Amino acid sequence: MANPILKTDLKIINAEEGSVFHFIKNTDVGFKNFGEVYFSNVEKDCIKAWKMHKEMTLNLVVPVGRVLFHFIDGRKDSEEFNKLHSVVLSQDPYFRLTVPPMFWFGFKGLADGLNLISNQADLVHDPEEVDRKPIDAFDVNWNMNL
Amino acid sequence: MANPILKTDLKIINAEEGSVFHFIKNTDVGFKNFGEVYFSNVEKDCIKAWKMHKEMTLNLVVPVGRVLFHFIDGRKDSEEFNKLHSVVLSQDPYFRLTVPPMFWFGFKGLADGLNLISNQADLVHDPEEVDRKPIDAFDVNWNMNL
Repeated sequence: MANPILKTDLKIINAEEGSVFHFIKNTDVGFKNFGEVYFSNVEKDCIKAWKMHKEMTLNLVVPVGRVLFHFIDGRKDSEEFNKLHSVVLSQDPYFRLTVPPMFWFGFKGLADGLNLISNQADLVHDPEEVDRKPIDAFDVNWNMNL
Repeated sequence: MANPILKTDLKIINAEEGSVFHFIKNTDVGFKNFGEVYFSNVEKDCIKAWKMHKEMTLNLVVPVGRVLFHFIDGRKDSEEFNKLHSVVLSQDPYFRLTVPPMFWFGFKGLADGLNLISNQADLVHDPEEVDRKPIDAFDVNWNMNL
């Protein structure tokens, strides 16, 4: 079964004065619609969990630092209901994750200094569209090495 | 005359585990269309200049570091042809600049470490749409304190 969380390798164009990091174009696989783009920082060893978007598709990159993500398939009609997907996002390797609606997710900062996530979402933020659970709602390994 | 470069104050939502930084929504003033979003880093004391987009509208933020931007009005039919606009983008104050087509721009990294620019553009990158000039094409003050 194809992974429902799409991974797309992204280019970094290096130059002496500073690099350029691709994120997402309207022609990319994984692009659905433009609702909003925003940034989240997560401090080292801090965990933000759990949220689920009932309608939003996420496009996630980490242009600064390293972040461990856990995703849990919350699609009740899926053969993979409750399946865990764990991924570290960073610049090396640098890639984008496209996360469909109905996945629970949580994340932890791994690097000293900034751990900057950017999300390009197909919808504008709407609190009605988000479900939340406390951090201990799912038993996952926050100390895994990937 | 209204400043052709629109400045929009943006929210930072602080939390102990890490902050959230708004960037742009499809309902925002300044939003035109979604072509692409990408990041550029510029090293401290390094200058990237000059480029002009003939068709692209830029939406610029600096979520990490501090960057001095110079913009020169290149609209030949404008009363403000050749007028210089100089702005420092950072997180404090945190705001977005919307830059119409036909402005020459260059920028310089001011902070130690990362100076990360993000651009939400209404068009996908197209080299045919970009004009370039060497750094000495315009005589501006790269050491100004804003």
